[in-house]
Amino acid sequence: MKTGYYAVIFTSKRTPEDEAGYADMAERMYELAARQPGFIAVEHAREAVGITVSYWESLQSIALWKDQTEHLMAQRQGRARWYESYHIRICKVEREYEFHK
Amino acid sequence: MKTGYYAVIFTSKRTPEDEAGYADMAERMYELAARQPGFIAVEHAREAVGITVSYWESLQSIALWKDQTEHLMAQRQGRARWYESYHIRICKVEREYEFHK
Repeated sequence: MKTGYYAVIFTSKRTPEDEAGYADMAERMYELAARQPGFIAVEHAREAVGITVSYWESLQSIALWKDQTEHLMAQRQGRARWYESYHIRICKVEREYEFHK
Repeated sequence: MKTGYYAVIFTSKRTPEDEAGYADMAERMYELAARQPGFIAVEHAREAVGITVSYWESLQSIALWKDQTEHLMAQRQGRARWYESYHIRICKVEREYEFHK
């Protein structure tokens, strides 16, 4: 059980616009995030709502990713075209447990 | 921006077994969780991985839900039949922001 790292919970509702452009951007952002300092992992699923959870070593690594140049452009496009709404929560992981068959 | 509440990030991989039984259980657990003291909200999506994030007023409300009788039975069935693996992270929400079109 390791703790002391952070989770960013990004939940969103999409507009019906530009599915292909959105998928390309999302793929690119996963690639870029994975190269950022302090990146640990990311998980994603979408049904009625999209949920992306990324894990980071520190608040500073989250702040750096937020201000990454290409990511800033994606955020602007996201608000203009792809997202009806979104909600970002920055969280400290306090406890965790796992099960594997 | 309200803070000082908690998020439980539950990520899972399913076995191919008993899809109908699993869906019924999941539906029932959402109903039950919503009646627990300290419950705020829940969000869910599944693609390759399932992500359920529930939000709670306190660590105590999370502990009570973990030990709720019918939920304990579902947890046992989950390990025996429905889940290949899962990961639970209990997190404190430190900061949040929202966008609405």
